[in-house]
Amino acid sequence: MADFKAVGKQFTEFYYQTFDSSRAGLKDLYRPNSMLTWESKEIVGAESIVEHLQNLPFQSVVHKITTIDAQPSSEDGRNILVSITGQLVVDEDIEHPLPFSQVFQLVQQAGSYFVFNDMFRLNYG
Amino acid sequence: MADFKAVGKQFTEFYYQTFDSSRAGLKDLYRPNSMLTWESKEIVGAESIVEHLQNLPFQSVVHKITTIDAQPSSEDGRNILVSITGQLVVDEDIEHPLPFSQVFQLVQQAGSYFVFNDMFRLNYG
Repeated sequence: MADFKAVGKQFTEFYYQTFDSSRAGLKDLYRPNSMLTWESKEIVGAESIVEHLQNLPFQSVVHKITTIDAQPSSEDGRNILVSITGQLVVDEDIEHPLPFSQVFQLVQQAGSYFVFNDMFRLNYG
Repeated sequence: MADFKAVGKQFTEFYYQTFDSSRAGLKDLYRPNSMLTWESKEIVGAESIVEHLQNLPFQSVVHKITTIDAQPSSEDGRNILVSITGQLVVDEDIEHPLPFSQVFQLVQQAGSYFVFNDMFRLNYG
């Protein structure tokens, strides 16, 4: 079994660094059968997912991670579920960060991971 | 492929109704290899998970669901990932509901689903 917690943490940090600096760079993390649910909108496929992320209506965004949890998501321990809570700082509005939660399932293929599932929600509570 | 959204919604409503009325009744939803991560604490196995849930330090709790998202979590469409955001009202303190997020992976076995993954976090933002 992979060290699922270390993989979850590394993936999460890499994902948000890439998201916050250059969203186009996220494309290699998805596959044609990957699914994103973004605030109830459902999108399938790497190209469509990254197009959606690039067209989000903000100029700059910073993800501040509060918690990262990870578990093996398949009995063979190859795949990993990662659940994150945190805050989004959008367009440098540091006075009004937006709480969010996001879930990824990372599926192992040929020694590396891709994102099979991705679900994002702002969490107004 | 199962109707993953309908399953996710039915499961979520049943789960929280059972949690809020009789936590012992949750045991049949888990298996010996199920994993719960509750506010960073990791617990494996139906018995240990339900024991943990029964020993939580509150008398009464009501889950108010804000959003339910679901996706197929395996390529054959048998398993389902469910991500929930909402508010917890603990011991009737309706003035101070606690935002939470929770993720389940439901795994299909012999025509029914069990909870393989369960991750819970309060989301203070």
